[in-house]
Amino acid sequence: MPVLVMKFGGTSVANLDRIRRAAKRVGVEVAKGYDVIVIVSAMSGKTNELVGWVEETSPLFDAREYDAVVSSGENVTAGLMALTLQEMDVPARSWQGWQVPVKTSSSHSSARIEEIPTDNITAKFGQGMRVAVVAGFQGISPEGRITTLGRGGSDTTAVAFAAAFGAERCDIYTDVDGVYTTDPRITDKARKLDRISFEEMLELASLGAKVLQTRSVELAMRYKVRLRVLSSFEEQSDTAGTLVCDEEDIMESNVVAGVAHSRDEAKMTLLSVADRPGIAATIFSALSDAGVNVDMIVQNISEEGRTDMTFSCPTAQVARAEKALADIKSSGGLNFAELVADKDVAKVSVVGIGMRSHTGVAAKMFKVLSEEGINIKVITTSEIKISVLIDRKYMELAVQALHDAFELDKAA
Amino acid sequence: MPVLVMKFGGTSVANLDRIRRAAKRVGVEVAKGYDVIVIVSAMSGKTNELVGWVEETSPLFDAREYDAVVSSGENVTAGLMALTLQEMDVPARSWQGWQVPVKTSSSHSSARIEEIPTDNITAKFGQGMRVAVVAGFQGISPEGRITTLGRGGSDTTAVAFAAAFGAERCDIYTDVDGVYTTDPRITDKARKLDRISFEEMLELASLGAKVLQTRSVELAMRYKVRLRVLSSFEEQSDTAGTLVCDEEDIMESNVVAGVAHSRDEAKMTLLSVADRPGIAATIFSALSDAGVNVDMIVQNISEEGRTDMTFSCPTAQVARAEKALADIKSSGGLNFAELVADKDVAKVSVVGIGMRSHTGVAAKMFKVLSEEGINIKVITTSEIKISVLIDRKYMELAVQALHDAFELDKAA
Repeated sequence: MPVLVMKFGGTSVANLDRIRRAAKRVGVEVAKGYDVIVIVSAMSGKTNELVGWVEETSPLFDAREYDAVVSSGENVTAGLMALTLQEMDVPARSWQGWQVPVKTSSSHSSARIEEIPTDNITAKFGQGMRVAVVAGFQGISPEGRITTLGRGGSDTTAVAFAAAFGAERCDIYTDVDGVYTTDPRITDKARKLDRISFEEMLELASLGAKVLQTRSVELAMRYKVRLRVLSSFEEQSDTAGTLVCDEEDIMESNVVAGVAHSRDEAKMTLLSVADRPGIAATIFSALSDAGVNVDMIVQNISEEGRTDMTFSCPTAQVARAEKALADIKSSGGLNFAELVADKDVAKVSVVGIGMRSHTGVAAKMFKVLSEEGINIKVITTSEIKISVLIDRKYMELAVQALHDAFELDKAA
Repeated sequence: MPVLVMKFGGTSVANLDRIRRAAKRVGVEVAKGYDVIVIVSAMSGKTNELVGWVEETSPLFDAREYDAVVSSGENVTAGLMALTLQEMDVPARSWQGWQVPVKTSSSHSSARIEEIPTDNITAKFGQGMRVAVVAGFQGISPEGRITTLGRGGSDTTAVAFAAAFGAERCDIYTDVDGVYTTDPRITDKARKLDRISFEEMLELASLGAKVLQTRSVELAMRYKVRLRVLSSFEEQSDTAGTLVCDEEDIMESNVVAGVAHSRDEAKMTLLSVADRPGIAATIFSALSDAGVNVDMIVQNISEEGRTDMTFSCPTAQVARAEKALADIKSSGGLNFAELVADKDVAKVSVVGIGMRSHTGVAAKMFKVLSEEGINIKVITTSEIKISVLIDRKYMELAVQALHDAFELDKAA
């Protein structure tokens, strides 16, 4: 029988009623003849509670223990979902990551999936089981310890299963009914996109659109997984939501597809760093080793052999970045005057494949922000996006102004 | 280095502060030179929350999914305890049941530990690790699925580890400072016992004294594990709490050691059962297969080839018992008129090794209850205990009256 992967996020399984509603939707697909692999997140709020406990216990936590604790939320939902399906007379059982096993790297808290053997679950499908409920977001390292894939990792789990099992489609059920031109909570002019290219979705996801996790879109692009984002709170047709697909499948599009934002950013500046070859490598290797996800990097003009180095990273990783840099300073590996952390910044980006063939997008963006009196702190660009770091208090204003200026409320 | 097992129950790890307090106590033993195996329960309330979700989802749940869900509570505590110890610079890591692996039978929700390989943890001790934190209450079946040992199973986990590692002692930290002659919440005349025999402890635990789980005491008795019950909320000396030990190590004792009670009892009566050989086997095999823990059994005098059969079981298993018996009735395996469940009963027992050599304990017990106007519904006896089922509303009165009559407030 054809296989369908259905993924339910935290708000879609937030309590027993919602789990039942999700299970009914699974039942509909089973009735159509699919063998279904359901990937579940933790009940919403649970992961935050667990992460809070870990961080309060140990600010510079052992990521292996973090993973052991935080992965428990998904296990609970997986068992409850299997029980709910059984109550509906749908043959189902749950799998925890290590039981499949979802084989990952040893990079705890941000592990990569390396292999998903299909024999175990396929055999059960052959014996009459119709739904395999798999705890998302987790796997097992070569050392036999529990790993997690990082926040939002359940999307990645879903796409990886869809690829491994050659699924007909991978439906991501969430609390929004698709991908929007920007966050509808910031402007009611935000418009749902029927289709979006993998490339644009990648930029939107990584920039904080929060609908799909970056790696899940990368994986879907690489393995040509048909990915659909849709709401678990509305009745659905087969064409609901937003289809994330190849660029060629999109007939016509705006120059800019969307405006993304990210509140969870910190701007870190190393003052008066010795400006010599290899210094950037020293800094960013140390940060990488400490598990800090550096995003934007800017190096100021050098004066008298010293320079300022600015980078951004998630707010939650500031303490870790500070420790890593203090450590290499005290061990003599790096010389700098001061490390200044600014946690009150936000990132705003415009994204669109059309930028490749249209010039002037950057100029227009800077002009719009300037007219609103918003100071730009850091700029980075790629082929299909332009991002700026600004004071967090201006974030909503910036998004609204850019959405208006690029006329994203109107379809192409 | 000598190994010590320390087990912390749910109230001893109820929040991060209490986990820190427990970790400090572990640190004291590490400083004395012990390699410590810490067994943890779920934070108090967590297991009940999980069980509640399972039962609401599926009243006649698949025990394999129940185990997958309910075991997650201990995993959280194990990781948090390991992190807390690391923060105190004590080298520690957590193990979930399947990682050790704690090999159990396939009897989900009430599995028995069959083997605990020691090589994995012993190797880590050899590499400098000082504390292995193990999630209690859980293991893995031969089929590779998660099992749980039943409520209170963390005590059993602790004793099994103490036996497997040849630990010098197994300290059970709980919310009481030892074993009492009866529940101090029922009478303030309850007195802490310095020592109690394994046999007496077995009867007290299985009868609801709630200090130690029955199987843990059985295991301790079989493997001669020195078992100490003590409070995690008071400063402790090496002789605090109650030592559970061999009968020979107790110099002098009262005829009756304690009065136990159990509120969580239901009295089930099968009316008008065909009285023929094999009928009891049919009934109790069916209940056993359904996972119902039958305690007391009474068969009334037979009239005209039919009899009434009464048994008691935990209140939570009434629905399961009813279904099992209805099933064999409808399949023609058993003929009876009606099944009557009385959930408003309680069990009260007097326990003491001294009963073996002293007569008249039963007569005295029945006289005391009669004087208080308490009707006895069912009686069972063993070599060292007498139990009665009474209306639940008289439970406290019965315990107080018996404690007074046997002068348990006075040491021997």
